[in-house]
Amino acid sequence: MTDTRFFDKKEGLTLGEIAKIGELKLPDGASLDRVFTDVASIDKAGENDVTWAFIPAMREPLKNTKAGAVIVPEKFLEFVPEGVLPLISADPHRSYGLVASAFYPTVVESYISDKAFIHPTATLGDGCRVEAGAFIGENVVLGSRCDIRANAVIEKGVQMGDDCIVGATATVSHCLAGSKVYIYPGAHIGQDGFGFAMSAKGPVKVPQLGRVIIGNDVEIGSGTTVDRGAMGDTVIGDGCRIDNLVQVAHNVKLGRCCVIVSQVGIAGSCEFSDFVVAGGQVGFAGHLKIGAGAQIAAQSGIMTDVAPGSILMGSPAVSRVEFMRQQIALQRLTKKKKEE
Amino acid sequence: MTDTRFFDKKEGLTLGEIAKIGELKLPDGASLDRVFTDVASIDKAGENDVTWAFIPAMREPLKNTKAGAVIVPEKFLEFVPEGVLPLISADPHRSYGLVASAFYPTVVESYISDKAFIHPTATLGDGCRVEAGAFIGENVVLGSRCDIRANAVIEKGVQMGDDCIVGATATVSHCLAGSKVYIYPGAHIGQDGFGFAMSAKGPVKVPQLGRVIIGNDVEIGSGTTVDRGAMGDTVIGDGCRIDNLVQVAHNVKLGRCCVIVSQVGIAGSCEFSDFVVAGGQVGFAGHLKIGAGAQIAAQSGIMTDVAPGSILMGSPAVSRVEFMRQQIALQRLTKKKKEE
Amino acid sequence: MTDTRFFDKKEGLTLGEIAKIGELKLPDGASLDRVFTDVASIDKAGENDVTWAFIPAMREPLKNTKAGAVIVPEKFLEFVPEGVLPLISADPHRSYGLVASAFYPTVVESYISDKAFIHPTATLGDGCRVEAGAFIGENVVLGSRCDIRANAVIEKGVQMGDDCIVGATATVSHCLAGSKVYIYPGAHIGQDGFGFAMSAKGPVKVPQLGRVIIGNDVEIGSGTTVDRGAMGDTVIGDGCRIDNLVQVAHNVKLGRCCVIVSQVGIAGSCEFSDFVVAGGQVGFAGHLKIGAGAQIAAQSGIMTDVAPGSILMGSPAVSRVEFMRQQIALQRLTKKKKEE
Repeated sequence: MTDTRFFDKKEGLTLGEIAKIGELKLPDGASLDRVFTDVASIDKAGENDVTWAFIPAMREPLKNTKAGAVIVPEKFLEFVPEGVLPLISADPHRSYGLVASAFYPTVVESYISDKAFIHPTATLGDGCRVEAGAFIGENVVLGSRCDIRANAVIEKGVQMGDDCIVGATATVSHCLAGSKVYIYPGAHIGQDGFGFAMSAKGPVKVPQLGRVIIGNDVEIGSGTTVDRGAMGDTVIGDGCRIDNLVQVAHNVKLGRCCVIVSQVGIAGSCEFSDFVVAGGQVGFAGHLKIGAGAQIAAQSGIMTDVAPGSILMGSPAVSRVEFMRQQIALQRLTKKKKEE
Repeated sequence: MTDTRFFDKKEGLTLGEIAKIGELKLPDGASLDRVFTDVASIDKAGENDVTWAFIPAMREPLKNTKAGAVIVPEKFLEFVPEGVLPLISADPHRSYGLVASAFYPTVVESYISDKAFIHPTATLGDGCRVEAGAFIGENVVLGSRCDIRANAVIEKGVQMGDDCIVGATATVSHCLAGSKVYIYPGAHIGQDGFGFAMSAKGPVKVPQLGRVIIGNDVEIGSGTTVDRGAMGDTVIGDGCRIDNLVQVAHNVKLGRCCVIVSQVGIAGSCEFSDFVVAGGQVGFAGHLKIGAGAQIAAQSGIMTDVAPGSILMGSPAVSRVEFMRQQIALQRLTKKKKEE
Repeated sequence: MTDTRFFDKKEGLTLGEIAKIGELKLPDGASLDRVFTDVASIDKAGENDVTWAFIPAMREPLKNTKAGAVIVPEKFLEFVPEGVLPLISADPHRSYGLVASAFYPTVVESYISDKAFIHPTATLGDGCRVEAGAFIGENVVLGSRCDIRANAVIEKGVQMGDDCIVGATATVSHCLAGSKVYIYPGAHIGQDGFGFAMSAKGPVKVPQLGRVIIGNDVEIGSGTTVDRGAMGDTVIGDGCRIDNLVQVAHNVKLGRCCVIVSQVGIAGSCEFSDFVVAGGQVGFAGHLKIGAGAQIAAQSGIMTDVAPGSILMGSPAVSRVEFMRQQIALQRLTKKKKEE
């Protein structure tokens, strides 16, 4: 059960609704009118809760769950205990996300605080919420149902589509964003890239004259920094998920649905194709091309272009197989030394 | 001498007060009424100052100090010059911290800015300070003497105990915190964890339905991000010290008195026992158990569970001894190559 | 062409003005009155634009540029096409920065928002701009033409010179800064360093009684944290450029014109000489001395002092030559293993 101080839950959903929302296949004869009242983890779920199980480590707990229903892949059917309703999904994680989001919908209550600053030239769509201390600058254009939280700052000229959230103290400038974009608390979008000419006479600033273009359905985590382009644009493609404290430098281009885990650093002008996954703390040198579906393990250092579908590890990064060989070789070396 | 533009100092403390506060043993016959007026570093301290020395590198400077008194371990007694009063401590660093805090006490002057936003349903204890631009949401409960600084944001339902500080532009949501918790400027606590199901159809959000539970006497550094739990809670135990720009992912649990240095990344669902120390930029993969008192050197990569008391280095991390062997082996290899 | 929603451009500059501003040598007989209207990248520039080319990769695009004029080093003259005016520079990157800054000058329009908080004891020079939600505390002193953006926080006693910018939601405390200092959005300057004595009884805070001293012409990136000194000061020298999400711990001293790339961590009391360059994600252990002009490659780990002019790589870092040898040795080892 979630903490009602923080979360607003729907009272209940029928099995019929759940099946439709979650893209689920029901057992023959399941009662579509049965009401479920919450989602819960496999060990805490009760008879009115929906739970889920889809990774091997969940198989044992599944056998003992007291949940009313469980979202599972077909191959887990045999582990679902008697009396628990199996809800079969081709993608149980996705199905769980859809069902849980239906129990805990994002609702934006229209409200404009008189302690917010909204420039008279700014345009807000229907149903927006602007909390105290939020700043919305000259000529900003926001779509419908945007939620601009306390002390967030949206600087002049920024445009965002519908259903966007700008978290508390986040800042957005020089940016054009699509719909369903969630900028987390304290993320910083659109500031100057790291541009200067350094010489013995000292540094000279190189003006950063580009923008940040963000697609639809994008999330950018807390503390993450996305610099605007130096001349062209920094681009974050549709469906990208960027975790906390990531650095995205000027002119970086991310394709669709890239997943960038916390504390990754992407140097200037890198271009990622679609569905690239970078683990925590990975570093990318500048001007690299990263192929579609490449997967880079945590803490890797990428210094050259990456072919599509590659799986890389280490700093400098090599293939996973080569990395394992290196580790084994190192172990053998130190063993030899002990034996000598 | 500290800069009075920034620091408010007590006029003086007697030796008797200092000894009591600092858990110090005085030499026989020391005058308890002697007044000291400040703390100072060993090379700058004068006759009315208290200084301290407890690491080997301080032994030489100690011999030349002009301080009035010096906090030392018993074994440093022989290096204390004539005319300088030795104040013996079993833990000189702790004693210095206690004495310096007595000269520079944290005083919160009760004040509520009319440029703050405080929701009518919020409850503040006695003696709180709320500066301009601070935001305190619906049903927030704060204890006594809390100091909520300029443009800090405390979102709905958050509860904090007595003597808490929320620094400028820090944000706190979905959080229950104990007393004496210090959230540094620009730290972000309680936002959504990195939860989604990614597929070829794009990402689906997995609602993050847990909280952040913080114990007593905890400090969380600037720019650090602590995500709330996905289903259960993220937990920071009593006495933890977390430095700047650290990432603590959803469902992480830290035991008591863990020390997490800057830019560490802790992936989801890791569980740390008490007194774990992680050096700067260490990365922890998800779902690991880190035993009590483990010490992880800076930049290490932890990919497996860690036994209590382990001392690890490298990425992937190995024991300190093994790490040194690897380095020596590498050096020998490259030397051989040169000789060939 | 830049996006006029975000950028204000001068209408035009004459060749004579451009040559003077950019420290450029013109071909004999060039018309000093010819007017240029913008800067543009080499592939997009038209006949009224100034572009630039100075790295080998730009040689081919240069041959096909349609720009009106191009800033080049003398040795690129032969690649400048007929009809394009070559503007010769001893430092083309610097020249471009100067010229582009002239087309896009930083103009601060004097304005004080009534939604800002300015303590009655604060002193602001002529022509400052203070946006809504900004906080300027007791006894703060700002020079002329400072630009304090939305929801920025400058705490009591801080002093900054002329032409400083404090970005949206940035925080500055316990700090004395020179002129032309740019604190990016969400940077945090002057908070407590990571100071405490940990023992089995728990932590005891060690008060952080120093300051942050910042020279002239310094930029500090978004999300970067610069802690104040514990007893002495943290110092950032003239002309330093610090990128996003960098950690600068208490008592660190940076010399002149150091370049610190994103996500670097510098532990307490390190001292950098002038013109040190640290690549992304480098970590420095505490109390190290880094010699003038040292260059540290991305992701390196520095555990010992560094001699002036060194070029280091790896973790722990070695010379670039040694690092390359290590990589080759590792590759040979794994190859041998495959052959065995």
